Amino acid sequence: MSTARFLPDRVETAAELAPRLGVSEDWIVSRTGVLRRHVSSESMARMGARAAEQALGDGPRPDLIINASGVPHQVLPDSSVFISKELGFSGLPSFSIHATCLSFPVAVHNAASLIQAGAYRRILVVSSELATRGRNFDEPESAALFGDGAGAAVLEPTPEGEPSAILGFEMATWPSGAELTEVRGGGTRQHPQDPTTVPWHNLFHMNGPAAYKMALRRAPGPLSRLFARCKVRPEEVQVVVPHQASGPGVAAATRFGFRAEAVVNRVSEEGNCVAASIPMALAYASEQGRLRRGDLVLLCGTGAGLSVLALLMRW
Amino acid sequence: MSTARFLPDRVETAAELAPRLGVSEDWIVSRTGVLRRHVSSESMARMGARAAEQALGDGPRPDLIINASGVPHQVLPDSSVFISKELGFSGLPSFSIHATCLSFPVAVHNAASLIQAGAYRRILVVSSELATRGRNFDEPESAALFGDGAGAAVLEPTPEGEPSAILGFEMATWPSGAELTEVRGGGTRQHPQDPTTVPWHNLFHMNGPAAYKMALRRAPGPLSRLFARCKVRPEEVQVVVPHQASGPGVAAATRFGFRAEAVVNRVSEEGNCVAASIPMALAYASEQGRLRRGDLVLLCGTGAGLSVLALLMRW
Repeated sequence: MSTARFLPDRVETAAELAPRLGVSEDWIVSRTGVLRRHVSSESMARMGARAAEQALGDGPRPDLIINASGVPHQVLPDSSVFISKELGFSGLPSFSIHATCLSFPVAVHNAASLIQAGAYRRILVVSSELATRGRNFDEPESAALFGDGAGAAVLEPTPEGEPSAILGFEMATWPSGAELTEVRGGGTRQHPQDPTTVPWHNLFHMNGPAAYKMALRRAPGPLSRLFARCKVRPEEVQVVVPHQASGPGVAAATRFGFRAEAVVNRVSEEGNCVAASIPMALAYASEQGRLRRGDLVLLCGTGAGLSVLALLMRW
Repeated sequence: MSTARFLPDRVETAAELAPRLGVSEDWIVSRTGVLRRHVSSESMARMGARAAEQALGDGPRPDLIINASGVPHQVLPDSSVFISKELGFSGLPSFSIHATCLSFPVAVHNAASLIQAGAYRRILVVSSELATRGRNFDEPESAALFGDGAGAAVLEPTPEGEPSAILGFEMATWPSGAELTEVRGGGTRQHPQDPTTVPWHNLFHMNGPAAYKMALRRAPGPLSRLFARCKVRPEEVQVVVPHQASGPGVAAATRFGFRAEAVVNRVSEEGNCVAASIPMALAYASEQGRLRRGDLVLLCGTGAGLSVLALLMRW
């Protein structure tokens, strides 16, 4: 799997953001752990294409594009079409997978199954988020979290004799947590033309403490099922790529028995980039030379839903 | 594959709709072929759950739910969570696949690969659309097309000795047609809170004649590749389930060599129900006793993107 990430040039620091939220820089840093985030003036499709171009490199064009983002470019067509357009492709199949902040590992799992079934041989998965566009400045605790960015990966069949494989995948969704993290507008529930739709419906809303508490309660089940099924112990995992939900969210990953140095943490530099966080952190680990053939790599996290997911790979 | 469909009770006829569009009943019927459509007062999630309950029947609960709808309940979490909630499930994995009007066959293709890979054994796919909520009454030709409804299917491994299988899948997307059929709002391109967002951005917009022309030009490629690869002739297909785009759209299916009586046509009774059209028409064919074990069944269509898709199954 070849990976890449794209971050827009413009950086917004906690000090710059603080007065817009009516809080102090210290308040932001101590609550969220986010020192700075990147802010894009380009579309999510353009950012996604920039990450995809790097992941594709000089190789042949993909035979399938999967957009794996949480927030779309527009309702219809789905965002994969606009990413394909930005890449200059025409006539390729493309579609979107949406599993909130966990869209990327769900798409990787699907892509691997499609490759195993012989349907495709080179699949591009792209996650791109303009999360700063959906910030609610009346809700500082969530607004201080988000950043923009994109991540991409190219999946191909494992070459003969190499160990790379998906070892296990576990996901569970508890709809009782659906309102803990949401953007209620944009669809038919609170249609933009519906007179009962108010501005906050169209922005990120998060009950941070309740979501954090529920995530901590629910995460152990799927994680321990995964490790039991794969006959792997958490401390054996060389690289853990959690969703970069928040400083406390990533810190909580160490509760599950992972080695602290295995956990990739980009929250302070990039914030929560929704579905782009996992592939961006994975690409960062790759750039740092932390992904070695044969290593155990775990993608994991909790997302809106409330969902918990863990995908264990032999790199 | 067990299938089911749900149609809301309320029916809106062409005669009722005509004055709201400033056109005559005859104008609607001759242009679109839609005599009536169903209109829901319930959410897309509730409608989807009603179809899903029928498809699941007395069987065990599924081990994965895939929402395969074109327009979401809300931006975040994805609609699968709300369908799962309406079904009373908790702790099941779920996510959404969005490939515009072709979401259902893309989800079936993914689900079959996941089952083949051993990841799941009973996958529920649900498409549900409140398309009448997005009608633009200033654009009679598209507004006269849409209807509400839901379709669902349950996929399981083929029992030993039975012939059921996916024989082939072809899809292609030409982003040059992205603006021919769209809902431009709801995402970050024309965010609901963006002052440049105007009402039509949040409603269906269709350049019907251009989309029809492009679809006719592009459809033969993927269809002929599918038939060549599967070594099947179009006239051998027992049941053809096209996307119910419009009267002329479904009528065009006969140009590709299918037997006229093989083509399932529900446009006059239900209109275009976006991604729900294909599973609803498939469930209708099943109710009519038209799907027999071993038959060749084709799901096909053109969708916003512009995309063309064809999925050939041995039932």
